[in-house]
Amino acid sequence: MIRFECDYAEGAHPRILERLIETNDIQTCGYTDDPYSDHARELIRKLCGREDVDVHFLVGGTQTNLTVIASILRPHQGAVCAQSGHINVHETGAIEATGHKVLTLPSRDGKITAKQVQKMVEGHWADVNHEHVVQPGMVYISQPTENGTMYTKAELTALYEVCREKGLPLYIDGARLGYALASPANDLTMAEIAGLCDVFYIGGTKIGAMFGEAVVICNPALKRDFRYYIKQRGGLLAKGRFLGLQFETLFEDGLYFEISKNAVERALEIRKVCEERGFPMLYDSMTNQQFPVLPNEMIEKLEKKYAFFVWEPVDAGHSAVRFCTSWKTTKEQAQALAEDLRG
Amino acid sequence: MIRFECDYAEGAHPRILERLIETNDIQTCGYTDDPYSDHARELIRKLCGREDVDVHFLVGGTQTNLTVIASILRPHQGAVCAQSGHINVHETGAIEATGHKVLTLPSRDGKITAKQVQKMVEGHWADVNHEHVVQPGMVYISQPTENGTMYTKAELTALYEVCREKGLPLYIDGARLGYALASPANDLTMAEIAGLCDVFYIGGTKIGAMFGEAVVICNPALKRDFRYYIKQRGGLLAKGRFLGLQFETLFEDGLYFEISKNAVERALEIRKVCEERGFPMLYDSMTNQQFPVLPNEMIEKLEKKYAFFVWEPVDAGHSAVRFCTSWKTTKEQAQALAEDLRG
Amino acid sequence: MIRFECDYAEGAHPRILERLIETNDIQTCGYTDDPYSDHARELIRKLCGREDVDVHFLVGGTQTNLTVIASILRPHQGAVCAQSGHINVHETGAIEATGHKVLTLPSRDGKITAKQVQKMVEGHWADVNHEHVVQPGMVYISQPTENGTMYTKAELTALYEVCREKGLPLYIDGARLGYALASPANDLTMAEIAGLCDVFYIGGTKIGAMFGEAVVICNPALKRDFRYYIKQRGGLLAKGRFLGLQFETLFEDGLYFEISKNAVERALEIRKVCEERGFPMLYDSMTNQQFPVLPNEMIEKLEKKYAFFVWEPVDAGHSAVRFCTSWKTTKEQAQALAEDLRG
Amino acid sequence: MIRFECDYAEGAHPRILERLIETNDIQTCGYTDDPYSDHARELIRKLCGREDVDVHFLVGGTQTNLTVIASILRPHQGAVCAQSGHINVHETGAIEATGHKVLTLPSRDGKITAKQVQKMVEGHWADVNHEHVVQPGMVYISQPTENGTMYTKAELTALYEVCREKGLPLYIDGARLGYALASPANDLTMAEIAGLCDVFYIGGTKIGAMFGEAVVICNPALKRDFRYYIKQRGGLLAKGRFLGLQFETLFEDGLYFEISKNAVERALEIRKVCEERGFPMLYDSMTNQQFPVLPNEMIEKLEKKYAFFVWEPVDAGHSAVRFCTSWKTTKEQAQALAEDLRG
Repeated sequence: MIRFECDYAEGAHPRILERLIETNDIQTCGYTDDPYSDHARELIRKLCGREDVDVHFLVGGTQTNLTVIASILRPHQGAVCAQSGHINVHETGAIEATGHKVLTLPSRDGKITAKQVQKMVEGHWADVNHEHVVQPGMVYISQPTENGTMYTKAELTALYEVCREKGLPLYIDGARLGYALASPANDLTMAEIAGLCDVFYIGGTKIGAMFGEAVVICNPALKRDFRYYIKQRGGLLAKGRFLGLQFETLFEDGLYFEISKNAVERALEIRKVCEERGFPMLYDSMTNQQFPVLPNEMIEKLEKKYAFFVWEPVDAGHSAVRFCTSWKTTKEQAQALAEDLRG
Repeated sequence: MIRFECDYAEGAHPRILERLIETNDIQTCGYTDDPYSDHARELIRKLCGREDVDVHFLVGGTQTNLTVIASILRPHQGAVCAQSGHINVHETGAIEATGHKVLTLPSRDGKITAKQVQKMVEGHWADVNHEHVVQPGMVYISQPTENGTMYTKAELTALYEVCREKGLPLYIDGARLGYALASPANDLTMAEIAGLCDVFYIGGTKIGAMFGEAVVICNPALKRDFRYYIKQRGGLLAKGRFLGLQFETLFEDGLYFEISKNAVERALEIRKVCEERGFPMLYDSMTNQQFPVLPNEMIEKLEKKYAFFVWEPVDAGHSAVRFCTSWKTTKEQAQALAEDLRG
Repeated sequence: MIRFECDYAEGAHPRILERLIETNDIQTCGYTDDPYSDHARELIRKLCGREDVDVHFLVGGTQTNLTVIASILRPHQGAVCAQSGHINVHETGAIEATGHKVLTLPSRDGKITAKQVQKMVEGHWADVNHEHVVQPGMVYISQPTENGTMYTKAELTALYEVCREKGLPLYIDGARLGYALASPANDLTMAEIAGLCDVFYIGGTKIGAMFGEAVVICNPALKRDFRYYIKQRGGLLAKGRFLGLQFETLFEDGLYFEISKNAVERALEIRKVCEERGFPMLYDSMTNQQFPVLPNEMIEKLEKKYAFFVWEPVDAGHSAVRFCTSWKTTKEQAQALAEDLRG
Repeated sequence: MIRFECDYAEGAHPRILERLIETNDIQTCGYTDDPYSDHARELIRKLCGREDVDVHFLVGGTQTNLTVIASILRPHQGAVCAQSGHINVHETGAIEATGHKVLTLPSRDGKITAKQVQKMVEGHWADVNHEHVVQPGMVYISQPTENGTMYTKAELTALYEVCREKGLPLYIDGARLGYALASPANDLTMAEIAGLCDVFYIGGTKIGAMFGEAVVICNPALKRDFRYYIKQRGGLLAKGRFLGLQFETLFEDGLYFEISKNAVERALEIRKVCEERGFPMLYDSMTNQQFPVLPNEMIEKLEKKYAFFVWEPVDAGHSAVRFCTSWKTTKEQAQALAEDLRG
């Protein structure tokens, strides 16, 4: 069984394991107050092209989202996001458990627009009884989205402009950020992203690490007391060095970008075959997740050899599926699937 | 600088790292739905001498405490614990952030008694306006406590009897459970502990693992839907295999107990020197944390060579300190400190 | 200016005020532990045709909803309701502030169906990763709905059957319950309602009282400790007698039903004129709220004389409005509006 | 049975009832957006000697406390108060249910000192691991306290100075504020109080009203969006006019102060008799609550004729009790008790 069901089916990048072994006997302080974490923070600041961002390391994505959002919102405010946003559909109400409503916007492909946000916020304030309604307090997007799509520089610029105009911090969930940055369709650098939002996170779990997400706080107003939030929500890892070590390894010589590229290339090979075969793509993804619409009999056959998600039924005889590649997907694995898609 | 400030200053046990490398290329399902986690669960059930306990793996202690407590209590209930309980003083209000008050009992050494709990609960129900007061909903203890002390079998039996009589689930925080089990003063097996509480957790972070805590739910009424709680609170690790692999390694041939024993032996060597020198011990600890009361000048001298906590001032010239050994503390490190304490 | 903007624009029914004056000098216990509250509870039990329901008095609707819902759900569960449900759109995230997601179902007229609930619940359990998704934990409906529509006995029976089958308590928000019971289209008695849900509340605020909502808990499993929840959420009125006195007055000789009838009759007069004029009704309401679609110029004219809500634009020249009558709307007020609608 | 058990055993002041009747037929907007509420706000601003305070009306004390505190604190912060503070002991964990820990200071008589607060806050920041501990985020006191004692101008000035220096908003629970202002031992005006805190509330429920508490926000930084908080927590009364009408009546010609004086005079008559008889007073209260230590046999005898609280046992033969007078306690009621205390 070859797994295309997610991008966390394998272990960690071997260089990370080597680094763990190398440093294992050294004693350090806990809670990311160690030299490896400090160095990793420095490397990330460099990538952002700015000395003035705060960098924190947390363990997982849901934890990161709930911690960041709890740190930004006031109790009567909600987080605006696409209907399909991860915080809305796949975190067991983690945001609501911190007391906040998720305010959804319709979206066909996982993205929301500057105009949608503007309309929602203006509509809120135009309502004479606005205090009876949850106040939009921030905007959450993911780059790439849960559907593999990406914001262009123009789209993100427009969105952030509206956010600033309306006073809503913009937070970018970058669980798969590397896969966006490595896409041939991408026109944004990490430094540009840091300049076009208030907070974002760089996902490690899905890109080579055992675990770990790096939160980058760009807006000075949101930096205060962030470590309290991490601790309160259970995200302050005692042996924080293991977070520092992993991000150090990923960022000291471009490993993160290099392995991200592999995932995208494999995914685009699969996409190409689908297009050749005339299978429609549910979303126009240029990242590591591909959503072709396949005949149901083909899906049944593929399921014997590959693990993947049947995303949604499309018509009586066809369903969309999700093939997810990762930093570790081999050319052989992708070619095997391509062969079988070619039929 | 030799570190006695905590039991998580080092990396992980080398056998764990070996096991990670060995299995790194294998693809598995996420979220602890993998064979390593299943095997680890089986090993823990065996140690508990029962097939009917549920075992879940979480990442850290605060996360585990807040998840377990949120899963047990109703909104109007609180968790009873010692004034010095970890959830009361060192988790940034994580329990309150889930909506629950921590109901404290005075304690000189970190332990609470069956009688104290009985009196609190009976006092609650005797109050004519009891609905104006938080209802005691469960009891939280740690074994060993934050002060290194331990519950004996007789004490735990009495406490659990009161808990059952009053309908309050008993939860044991075993962040350092191995260090209690390895103590010469201990008279409880893990199977006995599983029979004397409703839920407990076996700490990995402080005993050889990179991270990880194993929650054991003994009371069938508390098992339902526990994975939802883990996910909602951000504790469901995507690459859950890394949790399974670590607990498998720790429990497949007694490694956990063996390395716990090392920490306790080193700690008792330090205790012995203190007693020889006539330094009083703030708490009567037979586990890996020792709290001698030392002359302030000696503390100053020791601080140049060792990292440790100055716990609290005792009188004008003396303070209690905490020396914390770990599974990895060497005989040489302990002897160096012993020498310097001998003066 | 004549107000049709809501059903709480006037004071209280004069008989309530008389009763307050009559009893004002008498000393009683607080917190609804007084003889008036006891009597009111007895009257409500009689109306429900059952001795075994628990009756509690709270002050307002949002308070009642958040208290009842917090008392029913576990942290990982959400309340299922129509997209237009009051808890979803007009309570400033009160439910989310207690930690719970509101799980919405699409609805054209404010009602949801047994089939919709069944499908949602079955879909939840069919999802292999259901623990990543908020678990449907209860169903919330309002009778009549926020759109003036009502559930028939057949619809409510079908809904409750699914709820019981799936283990989801059904809660009915009866902020305007009297206006449903008094409708010529109604086929449900209060006793039947009590038999077709787990909890419901009888609204006082909108039907003759100064304030006050009576919660009726029919399901024995949901009765425990409810007074704690009321107190914790700030709803336990110190001078609880004022709640008891009002419900006693409303229910001792049918006042509640009599004055509800007035509101519905006035509303149906307005409806009749609209139909005569050929104005479409946005929702098919047979209760005290009417939603005709009117020409915008007519709306502008009416706004000079009447207070009412412009509900939503329908096309370039027309908008739906809401006319809301109350227990106190006079024939003269309704006729004045009818005249002006007749044009 | 004459009731001295609380100050909310009777109805409302007759002038309030008259005013309700007078205005009952008039239609107004809801949610305190009516002319009576506006006028009441104006009257309260005048009493505060400032145009720039915001005044909001809520229904009850616990509701007010939880709403104000939720509006001030960030998630990782707690409210500092006396161990005996109402929010700590008699609100069923309402504050914790909003996510915040109550940080208690020991107190013999219900008051806390500037020095205690200073020490706690400085201790917090001196802790190297302060992010593991709940951050003191505001200070809560009551005037008078739950023990009938009062802060002097000097004490309040010192406390507020420390609060401002440390950046902690000071909130005063004035559930019985009138009884402090009417005390012969008082040296503070309402205007001075408004200048010595960030937020306070003026209690109506316990002083002549049917219900109602007036929140005064003095610190501009805390005014924003407060109505959202009221609505979210269920405190925005639909028929808000009833709140406005009551506070208008209480404040338009000094009724509040006049009736408060009655309660204090009656209480001091009881105190005088106790002192004559040599009964020690548990707390040195010059307000409407008196806590004499009485022989147990006398208590038993009194219980046949009067309702009051047995506060706590003092020694084998004596207990402290609480006698609570109110705005409506008559001279005859107080004299009857005085006689029986005289023996």
